[in-house]
Amino acid sequence: MTLFYPNGQPFQRSAEVKTSNNQQVTVNYGKRGMTLEEALNVTNQYYIESDQAVIYKKPTPIQIVHVDYPKRSAARITEAYFRKASTTDYNGVFLGKYIDFEAKETTHPNYIPLKNFHEHQVLHMARIKRHGGIGFIIVRFTPTDEIYLLDASYLENRWNEAIQKSGRKSLPKTLFQEKGYLVPQNYLPRIDYLRVIKDVYF
Amino acid sequence: MTLFYPNGQPFQRSAEVKTSNNQQVTVNYGKRGMTLEEALNVTNQYYIESDQAVIYKKPTPIQIVHVDYPKRSAARITEAYFRKASTTDYNGVFLGKYIDFEAKETTHPNYIPLKNFHEHQVLHMARIKRHGGIGFIIVRFTPTDEIYLLDASYLENRWNEAIQKSGRKSLPKTLFQEKGYLVPQNYLPRIDYLRVIKDVYF
Repeated sequence: MTLFYPNGQPFQRSAEVKTSNNQQVTVNYGKRGMTLEEALNVTNQYYIESDQAVIYKKPTPIQIVHVDYPKRSAARITEAYFRKASTTDYNGVFLGKYIDFEAKETTHPNYIPLKNFHEHQVLHMARIKRHGGIGFIIVRFTPTDEIYLLDASYLENRWNEAIQKSGRKSLPKTLFQEKGYLVPQNYLPRIDYLRVIKDVYF
Repeated sequence: MTLFYPNGQPFQRSAEVKTSNNQQVTVNYGKRGMTLEEALNVTNQYYIESDQAVIYKKPTPIQIVHVDYPKRSAARITEAYFRKASTTDYNGVFLGKYIDFEAKETTHPNYIPLKNFHEHQVLHMARIKRHGGIGFIIVRFTPTDEIYLLDASYLENRWNEAIQKSGRKSLPKTLFQEKGYLVPQNYLPRIDYLRVIKDVYF
């Protein structure tokens, strides 16, 4: 089976990438394994192809400053900047329910710093839950390659405590172990988070 | 009340825009009225602020080819191209339901050509409905400034008929009048499509 990214490109274990000083470099994904984002894209593509859910990563928000419109060829953006997202990265529908989540990796074995999330995202997930959607975070602890799913309410609580200066500026791994769920990892689906969602929210 | 775009920028009736030959031009939105996209952004921002729903336009998908990382300043994208969207532009949650739609304007008084939509989008909306989401299109007929909401199933039917060469390559306005719903336009919310959704789908 050929795997495809949601943009229709075939999944590749290596890619040609240009560096800022215009050198061509081959990045080999096979050696280092997929990033969490790549693994979730492959997972979501599998969910769509097997008709289990329709969940996508949103495009990266870009502030476009300048576009050239050459004759007889595609419009070319020549100046643009990355913008901070006002929502989470992933959303969609599963068994009639609205699904919304943010995914992050941490290199720390025992915690993830709160600065991996933005205030806009925390507020967004709180709104989602208030309107009957399912909101959560997916965090990979890279040293052990464990992936946890945690309801967004715990992130919101910690966030508010941290703002009041009394709380920690991180989410400890013990919180994920006690209140969250370890997500099964397979070949297909790569990160089977919908199995957890089905058990926990339905 | 100050209106804001979802990216946090205040809504402005005019803006400084650079043309491809680097000239500064002022676009006055007041004169020509808002585009459908601008009006929907203002509407969705109002729905969020009044805590009625959480619906956003997705960022435009961009294929990034080259990025400069200057020291002590923000990463600058110096080569990028617009990509074709694989989903619709708008989605979110309303009264616990997943909402998904595409919005288009037509300058034709009596129809909108099917080429305003992409096959990916038609397939996407069919999937959304199959998984219990609410999928529809919003179309503004600019000559009369009428805005209609039409369930995605009618687009899908017409699309399949057109592929079989027997059908028309457009959606006639009569289809919107017979099977769709005229969307009320006010000052706030600007395009009150959720009022229609509430009456029709709940």
